[in-house]
Amino acid sequence: MNIILLGGTGSIGSMSLDLIRDYKYNLLGVSLGTNLDRSIEIVKEFKPTYICVRKASDKALFSGLCENIFIGDEGLKELAKIKCDILLNALSGSIGLIPTIEAINAKNDIALANKESLVMAGDIIMKLAKKNNVNIYPVDSEHSAIWQAIKGEDYNTINKLYITASGGAFRDKKRNELENVTVNEALNHPNWSMGKKITIDSATMMNKGLEVIEAHHLFNIPYKNIVPVLHKESVIHALVSFNDSNIKAILAPHDMKLPILYALNRGSRINYENKLNLTTLHFKKMSFKRFPLLKYAIDAGKKGGIMPTVLTSSNEAAVKLFLDGKIKILDIETIVYNELSNTKNFKPTIDDIIRVDKEIRERILGGK
Amino acid sequence: MNIILLGGTGSIGSMSLDLIRDYKYNLLGVSLGTNLDRSIEIVKEFKPTYICVRKASDKALFSGLCENIFIGDEGLKELAKIKCDILLNALSGSIGLIPTIEAINAKNDIALANKESLVMAGDIIMKLAKKNNVNIYPVDSEHSAIWQAIKGEDYNTINKLYITASGGAFRDKKRNELENVTVNEALNHPNWSMGKKITIDSATMMNKGLEVIEAHHLFNIPYKNIVPVLHKESVIHALVSFNDSNIKAILAPHDMKLPILYALNRGSRINYENKLNLTTLHFKKMSFKRFPLLKYAIDAGKKGGIMPTVLTSSNEAAVKLFLDGKIKILDIETIVYNELSNTKNFKPTIDDIIRVDKEIRERILGGK
Repeated sequence: MNIILLGGTGSIGSMSLDLIRDYKYNLLGVSLGTNLDRSIEIVKEFKPTYICVRKASDKALFSGLCENIFIGDEGLKELAKIKCDILLNALSGSIGLIPTIEAINAKNDIALANKESLVMAGDIIMKLAKKNNVNIYPVDSEHSAIWQAIKGEDYNTINKLYITASGGAFRDKKRNELENVTVNEALNHPNWSMGKKITIDSATMMNKGLEVIEAHHLFNIPYKNIVPVLHKESVIHALVSFNDSNIKAILAPHDMKLPILYALNRGSRINYENKLNLTTLHFKKMSFKRFPLLKYAIDAGKKGGIMPTVLTSSNEAAVKLFLDGKIKILDIETIVYNELSNTKNFKPTIDDIIRVDKEIRERILGGK
Repeated sequence: MNIILLGGTGSIGSMSLDLIRDYKYNLLGVSLGTNLDRSIEIVKEFKPTYICVRKASDKALFSGLCENIFIGDEGLKELAKIKCDILLNALSGSIGLIPTIEAINAKNDIALANKESLVMAGDIIMKLAKKNNVNIYPVDSEHSAIWQAIKGEDYNTINKLYITASGGAFRDKKRNELENVTVNEALNHPNWSMGKKITIDSATMMNKGLEVIEAHHLFNIPYKNIVPVLHKESVIHALVSFNDSNIKAILAPHDMKLPILYALNRGSRINYENKLNLTTLHFKKMSFKRFPLLKYAIDAGKKGGIMPTVLTSSNEAAVKLFLDGKIKILDIETIVYNELSNTKNFKPTIDDIIRVDKEIRERILGGK
C-alpha cells in the first residue's frame, strides 16, 4: 500500500508511522513539522520518495536523504496531488483544508483525521468527492465507530447517531470551578493522549461539537439526529439507533491505531491486538449549559455556510491564546460566541473560507 | 407474508400475534396449547387456514371456525410441512425439535425461538438446513443481537461472541442463600417477563448455557470463542469482538417483539418504536462456581453427541419438579449433573435423541 501522510510529526502521524512500519506499508510521501530531529529520523527510516518541509531553509537538512522535497503550504498541495493508494491527512487545524481539496481533485482516496476540512467546507468537499468518485474514510475514533456500526445496514433505517464524549479534563468540575484552571490542568486528559489543541477542545467540549458537524457531512445525517452523550469511560465510541429500535454500539480500547488501521484499509479488518476490558459503562445526558461550545458548534453546523469556519477559526485562535497563558479557559467561549454573533452568514467558496479564516485569526491573535 | 406459528398460545406466540395484527401479516397456520379460551379467540381473530390442537377432543370446539384441523404431535409435523414464507417455531421444550426438522425438509425458512432444536440436534439441523438451502433465523434476543452485529462483517474477522446474562432472579444472592428459595421468588425475573421454564432457567443460568450451545450452531463459532458475561441491566444483548480489536454491541429495550420482527423479516429492519434509555451499564465476570449449570451446559455443548440432549432433557424435567414444589432449586443442578455423569456419549440420530429425551424424562419425573 502506497501511503502519503500529511502531518508525519504529529500525534496521529506518529501512530500512523508505527502502523506503516509494522504492516510493511510503503510511505510514498510525508509532510514534516517543526520537530526537525524527528523529521530526519522519519526520512532515514522510511525513505519516502517525496517529502514536504515547512521552510526553504529546512531543505538542506534532507539533502542526500530524499530527492523530491516540497516546501510550505504550496508544497503540501503538490504532495497531496501525487497519485497514491491512500492519502492520510493528519494535519492539525485549518491548514489541512486545501490539501484535502487537492487530493480529491487528484482522485486520491483520503483517510481523514483533519477535522477542519469537513467542519469548514463539508458541503463543498463531500460534493467534490462525490463528483470525483473519491472515498473519504474517517480516522476519528467516533466516526470510525459510526462507520463500523452502519456497515451492512440500509441507510434508510438509520434513526440517530450518538457520539460519546469522555467529558475531558474538567468533566467533574462545575462551570464556576473553571474560572482559573491552568493550561497544564486542561492538558491532563483523563482517557486519551493527544495533541494539545484537541485536548483543550475536549475540555471545552468544542471537540464534540466539531465531531457532530463532521458526522453530519460524512454520513449525510441531519443535525437533529446526531446526539452527543457523556460517557466517562470512553469504552463506547459511538452508537447508531435504527428504525426498529435496535441500537448498535462500537466499543474499542483507547488506541487511535485502531481507527487509523481501519481507515487505511478502507473498512476491512486487519489483525491488531489491543484487548479491551469490558468494565463499568456509564452514560449521562449532555448539558449545553455546562458545555456551551458544544451548542455553538452544533448551531454553527446547522446554519452552515461560513459559520462553521468562523466557529473553528475563532476556536483555534482562542485555544492558542489559552495555551500561551494569555486568556482564561472560559474566555474561549466568549471569543467564539462574539465571532459567531458578529458574522453575517453567506455561502462561501473555498477562497472565502480561507480569507475568513485568516481574518479571524488576525483579529483574535493580532493584538496579543 | 404467510406465517405458520408453532406455539401460538405461549409467551413468544402471543407477542408474535400482536406483530401479525399490527403489520397485517397473514397467519396461515397456528398450533394451539392448553388454554382453549385463548385458542378460540386467536382462531376467531386471525382466521388461520390451518390449526393444530393438542387433543382430538379439542377439535369440536373449533368446528365452523377452521376447516383444516391437525391434532397433537403428528399434527405439529403436518402443520410444519405446509408451504409458507416463514415458520416461526415458538414451541417451548423438546417438543419443538421434530417440527423444526419437518419444516426444513419441506424447505420452509424458520424463525427459531425453540432453543431445544439446536441444543439437542444442532449438528443435524444445521447440516440439514444447509442441504435444503433453508435459512434459520434466531429469535432469542441474544442471538438476534449477534446476527445484527455480524451483518456486513467478514466471518473470518470474528474473534469472540459475548452473550450477556442479566443473572436472573437470584443474581444478587450467594449460592448458600439459594437453598430454600420458593418457586414464586424464582419466577420473579428482574428484567424480562417470560414463560415459567425459561424464567427458572435464567435464575439457574442454564438458559445462558443453552444459548451458548445455540450460538455455536447458528454462527459456527467454536465454544472457546463464546463468552457469557454478567450484565445486570440487559441493555446490551450481545457483543462481537473482531480481529482488529473493535467490538460491536447491540443494545435494545427489553422487548421480544424486536427480535421476532427482525427474524420474520429475515434481518431487514422494519419500523418499530420502543425507545431504550441509555442508562448505566455494568459488566461483571461470570463465575462458573456460582452458576455450575452454565459450566455443565458449555461442557455438554463441547462434547456434543447425545450430551446436549441429556442436558436439556434432564433440566427440563428438573425444572418441572421445582415448579411443582417437589424439589429445591439447587437440586436442579444435582439432577442434571447426575444424568450427564451417568451417560456414555455417542453420536445420535434424531430417533436416538427422541428416545433418550423420553427415557430421561421418565426416569426423573416417573416416581414423583
